[in-house]
Amino acid sequence: MSFRSHMNIALEEARAAMARGEVPVGAALIGPDGAVIAQDGNRTRELGDATAHAELLVLRAGARTLESERLTGCDLYVTLEPCAMCAGAIAHMRIARLYYGAADPKSGGTAHGARVFSHPQCHHRPEIYDGIGAAEAEMLLRAFFEERRADP
Amino acid sequence: MSFRSHMNIALEEARAAMARGEVPVGAALIGPDGAVIAQDGNRTRELGDATAHAELLVLRAGARTLESERLTGCDLYVTLEPCAMCAGAIAHMRIARLYYGAADPKSGGTAHGARVFSHPQCHHRPEIYDGIGAAEAEMLLRAFFEERRADP
Repeated sequence: MSFRSHMNIALEEARAAMARGEVPVGAALIGPDGAVIAQDGNRTRELGDATAHAELLVLRAGARTLESERLTGCDLYVTLEPCAMCAGAIAHMRIARLYYGAADPKSGGTAHGARVFSHPQCHHRPEIYDGIGAAEAEMLLRAFFEERRADP
Repeated sequence: MSFRSHMNIALEEARAAMARGEVPVGAALIGPDGAVIAQDGNRTRELGDATAHAELLVLRAGARTLESERLTGCDLYVTLEPCAMCAGAIAHMRIARLYYGAADPKSGGTAHGARVFSHPQCHHRPEIYDGIGAAEAEMLLRAFFEERRADP
């Protein structure tokens, strides 16, 4: 599968999150052989846990599936720029490549704010590719927040 | 209980983590009324999950116990300066006060490196008190890494 197909899996998860009333962000974890290891969307409301971001859920599921503390050689696809928490988790997990869709100037921690991968205290920096599927990812987020404003 | 007694619970958890062969870091979550809501130590090896830091475990346990997505008004005690991942989680959980022991110039993300709370992209900044129980916390970490170097 191409990187665009992998991002489509993350986008599907973002749409599913939206249908559950969650902020629409989705993620997919891909193994070194291109197989989908885990896919999930944001579940902070459902799980009653503000740390239940799509990235953290998928990284932890991947560690369980591969029975490995770290996910060396795996790639992570996520529809939105990871926040500082998720960027830190991506570094701890030794993710090889990070592909993300929409930029997040307001809450991001990758290209904005804490820029977690840009400090010597970050012991692993993935290759980063941004903007893939960004238009769809942004459209979902915009639709979600407009709906919430209209019907609070 | 005083803040020193709360840090002693975190230090106990750090010692228990060391006894399990884990990097000795411990944490305790204290409710607005001073009750201990959760306490745990690092379990990255045991759980086979590089994100299983003491802070994340205790924050997630607290959310389960209080049946609340966020831990508004709660305090977190941790024996070591939180990394970027854990600092991000502390912000998401709306922790009121963060007390930590040893500074972590090599991997920290609070007073070092990403300085997660020092950017407008961080939507909540706890009050931060450092250095509490730092000597014991450092002694445990030093002993652990010296033992590992001697017997790899």
